Amino acid sequence: MPYRAPVSEFAFLMDHVVGMDRVAATEKFAEATPDTVQAVLTEAGKMAEEVLAPLNRTGDLQPARLENGVVRTSPGFAGGYRAIAEGGYVAISADPEYGGLGLPMSVTTAVNEMIASACLSLQLNPLMTQGQIEALENHASDEIKELYLPKLVSGEWCGTMNLTEPQAGSDVGALRSRAEPKGDGTYAVSGQKIYISWGDNDFTENVVHLVLARLPDGGPGTKGISLFLVPRNLPNADGSAGVGNSLKVVSLEHKLGLHGSPTAVMQYDGATGWLVGEPHEGMAAMFTMMNNARLGVGVQGVGIAEAAYQHALNYALERKQGRVPTDEGFGTILDHADVRRMLTGMKAEVFAARALTLDLAVSIDLAHATGDADMTARAAFLTPICKAYGTDTGIAVADMGIQVHGGMGFVEETGAAQYLRDVRVTAIYEGTNGIQAMDLVGRKMMDGGSAAKALLAEIAATASASDIGGPLTDAVAALGEATDMLTGMEMNDRFAGSVPYLRAFALALGGHYHLKAAMAESGGVRAKLAESFLLRQLPELHSLLAQVRLGAEDLYALRDDDFAA
Amino acid sequence: MPYRAPVSEFAFLMDHVVGMDRVAATEKFAEATPDTVQAVLTEAGKMAEEVLAPLNRTGDLQPARLENGVVRTSPGFAGGYRAIAEGGYVAISADPEYGGLGLPMSVTTAVNEMIASACLSLQLNPLMTQGQIEALENHASDEIKELYLPKLVSGEWCGTMNLTEPQAGSDVGALRSRAEPKGDGTYAVSGQKIYISWGDNDFTENVVHLVLARLPDGGPGTKGISLFLVPRNLPNADGSAGVGNSLKVVSLEHKLGLHGSPTAVMQYDGATGWLVGEPHEGMAAMFTMMNNARLGVGVQGVGIAEAAYQHALNYALERKQGRVPTDEGFGTILDHADVRRMLTGMKAEVFAARALTLDLAVSIDLAHATGDADMTARAAFLTPICKAYGTDTGIAVADMGIQVHGGMGFVEETGAAQYLRDVRVTAIYEGTNGIQAMDLVGRKMMDGGSAAKALLAEIAATASASDIGGPLTDAVAALGEATDMLTGMEMNDRFAGSVPYLRAFALALGGHYHLKAAMAESGGVRAKLAESFLLRQLPELHSLLAQVRLGAEDLYALRDDDFAA
Repeated sequence: MPYRAPVSEFAFLMDHVVGMDRVAATEKFAEATPDTVQAVLTEAGKMAEEVLAPLNRTGDLQPARLENGVVRTSPGFAGGYRAIAEGGYVAISADPEYGGLGLPMSVTTAVNEMIASACLSLQLNPLMTQGQIEALENHASDEIKELYLPKLVSGEWCGTMNLTEPQAGSDVGALRSRAEPKGDGTYAVSGQKIYISWGDNDFTENVVHLVLARLPDGGPGTKGISLFLVPRNLPNADGSAGVGNSLKVVSLEHKLGLHGSPTAVMQYDGATGWLVGEPHEGMAAMFTMMNNARLGVGVQGVGIAEAAYQHALNYALERKQGRVPTDEGFGTILDHADVRRMLTGMKAEVFAARALTLDLAVSIDLAHATGDADMTARAAFLTPICKAYGTDTGIAVADMGIQVHGGMGFVEETGAAQYLRDVRVTAIYEGTNGIQAMDLVGRKMMDGGSAAKALLAEIAATASASDIGGPLTDAVAALGEATDMLTGMEMNDRFAGSVPYLRAFALALGGHYHLKAAMAESGGVRAKLAESFLLRQLPELHSLLAQVRLGAEDLYALRDDDFAA
Repeated sequence: MPYRAPVSEFAFLMDHVVGMDRVAATEKFAEATPDTVQAVLTEAGKMAEEVLAPLNRTGDLQPARLENGVVRTSPGFAGGYRAIAEGGYVAISADPEYGGLGLPMSVTTAVNEMIASACLSLQLNPLMTQGQIEALENHASDEIKELYLPKLVSGEWCGTMNLTEPQAGSDVGALRSRAEPKGDGTYAVSGQKIYISWGDNDFTENVVHLVLARLPDGGPGTKGISLFLVPRNLPNADGSAGVGNSLKVVSLEHKLGLHGSPTAVMQYDGATGWLVGEPHEGMAAMFTMMNNARLGVGVQGVGIAEAAYQHALNYALERKQGRVPTDEGFGTILDHADVRRMLTGMKAEVFAARALTLDLAVSIDLAHATGDADMTARAAFLTPICKAYGTDTGIAVADMGIQVHGGMGFVEETGAAQYLRDVRVTAIYEGTNGIQAMDLVGRKMMDGGSAAKALLAEIAATASASDIGGPLTDAVAALGEATDMLTGMEMNDRFAGSVPYLRAFALALGGHYHLKAAMAESGGVRAKLAESFLLRQLPELHSLLAQVRLGAEDLYALRDDDFAA
């Protein structure tokens, strides 16, 4: 059984859980009626099932490779990319002025999830372009916008993000790439960048790199960094891709997964670039791009979780093994309590993580459409949670999918292992999940916890409205106390508890979404699944908060030398 | 920094945590003095560091392959195997009558861990042979023992286990392989077996298969299964390996990890075999072998956890990144609270899991030496816990090791990803961890919970003897209540909570070992690590027990159809 796009599930979540009607009620997104959205999702789902899913294993077995400086992509990827581009799926949320559909990010989110489920390594390409489009829309000059956006939006060209250098990973401010003004309004960009996803390909006419580098008068740290647009091919006067720029792919990484996605070491040797945004304010533009990407990467986690869940369920429904304790007969392994426990948990976690991505997307859309400060803060607070919980869920569900398969899970031809290998990096790139958690308890709580508390109030209201909400009421009370405690802590004590705190918050949000679904469909499957989530997944919150309360003291009681002893 | 064998850690655990002195006090193991044990471990550790660890990546990059029906092993593996065999490490615990060292299983356990840390794919070979030696010692005729044991003990020949068939995985009783008496005391064994670890190799003179098959008068299910010894080469009159038997390697699996270990599909076409044990009682002999292997596989998990921990720690101690919050300077990433949290947790979990393997091994040794029924029951109860917790810890620590490495963790050349790929199967083979948990709450509680309660009393005594034992006292009380509840449940309700129950028990045991270590070295690093384990890892027990109490009801509230909805 191949991947089936969960189109009706998106409709349910939009209608009953994340309040998509609020988005369609804005002037900006008035076109995003349920019918339009459903039509877009149906078409995208069909493409994901029929065109993209068959490419997934090919990409794994026949990785992108570098031949004489040219990246050769996996067989079929060019055609898959064309289907994505021609369907308009690169630019669902891009500005119609440049050819985008102008639909809300919540629609992009659902479409991205389906494409990620079908073929994650290919989906990473348009995801990077989406981030670039948003960065250019918000920070680039009109000249750059007019030249580049139509090409990016149509998918004729694609975009990359160039942040990391060998000595500058999580610490972006340590980067050494330089940009020298050439006197004609352009800059000569030089330096080495690593981990550049889709650094090159053989199916778009051009590849546009957004590169962080330091101007001669740029100070140390993040405040001295500027952002440059550096195309692989310099545009001709007519806008077509012209001669090659002074940059190259040095090598591609041999990775645990995502073999179909070429991860490049890029070398810039005085490459011609254009400044995007103000000098020394590259981080601001980068954050625009990264915020988009953080939601997008959380969605990647959900996409793999969904695909791995479907894959494991199909196996469990077919595999007959052992006497079934309930009726003394022989059935499929889904009849065994522990397999059923695994699949129930997987389903419940996929639901929670997906709802979180859509909830965040709706907040982004509402903030975008209305400019409401509370909604902007809500979106900002949910972003790191979505990235980390979405990807952690992808990893956990893919791992459990292997376990459901038993011995077959360890054999590559089954496909279960590829999901784990592919999704593992999502907890690392676009800011490790540890960095997400530091962002949450640091920057996102500089408001004294008010965004957190507003969300806690939402969750508490849901819990008290439901007749099965007791465990969530307890959970949100504990989370509220921990939030108060956390905002009073020194920063490093917060950091010590940041990952457990983020996860605890995500579990409470998961309970909130499950209860909303249960209330929309009383007595049905959703209520049963909600109850299972509240009784099986949510209690972990309490052990997580126990860690939050500890601060950092016990960790530093061990000296560095003690770790090796 | 390469792998360093933790020889002094074994000595500490043996002296202060698992009571190895009780083993040396028996007549049977009087030779296992601390000095002798330390000498064996030192030598084995040196071999693991110097000879075996360098093979680990080679095995991954150059997998075993099948060429014209012949298995070609990874470069260097033949030499690595020779070092293991010539060092006597295949047969540390084998009967001296056949050339073994007659040392306790606790010594084998420590040696196996070091070899597993260094090169898991190769270590799986002697581990299988160890299980076969024990099965033959306990169940084979004198004739078979005299012919085969000296060859297996010396490592000239090696052994495999053949249980699984395509339709008979966890449900061994569904197997279809047949054995027909040939009238001369031998049998013609026919059938296909899958997932045969080290099904063949090119460095031992012979490969001896232990094969489960059904005699013509064998009934259905596990009660009709017999065990046969089926050598690849039929022994000559002088005991040397003679002509080939009617069996072959059909194919090797392409696996997520353990590439250096050839996992074979084996075909037996009327191959000549000898009955081991009584007709239709093959499962009893198989359980001897599997019990040994379950401890051994738990140890594999610990071995990879140790190696992955060392690997991540070395990276964290070298990698400089970001401003350190504690002193406003720049340091290594170990100075960051979240990295420190990960490595502290990894270290604490490795300690707990290793102590569990040694505690079980000591129980096996004492049961073996004294025949004490309580000790036998203790060992039987700990076996599934050790297998599942050891391997789950291996997976969790290897996964966290990737995260510590950031982007480098996803790049294969770093080696962090290989640990996860290699160790993942340990939660599946020799009985999935779900099957282990079913064994624990089923078979191992047929005594009404008395073995469980004896262990709980031990843990409670440790908790109350320690001035930091409060959280463990609470934990063991909750675990005791859950145990009482569980023993009163219908079997399928037990099964629904079996995996959480097993893990909760393992966490309580982990606390017990940590406190014993802390009390042996008051105020030192061990006390700090113990406190961290009790405050950070142990609280998960309470959320696990919440699941145990649920039984199976909510899981079956969802119908099969609901899972796909």
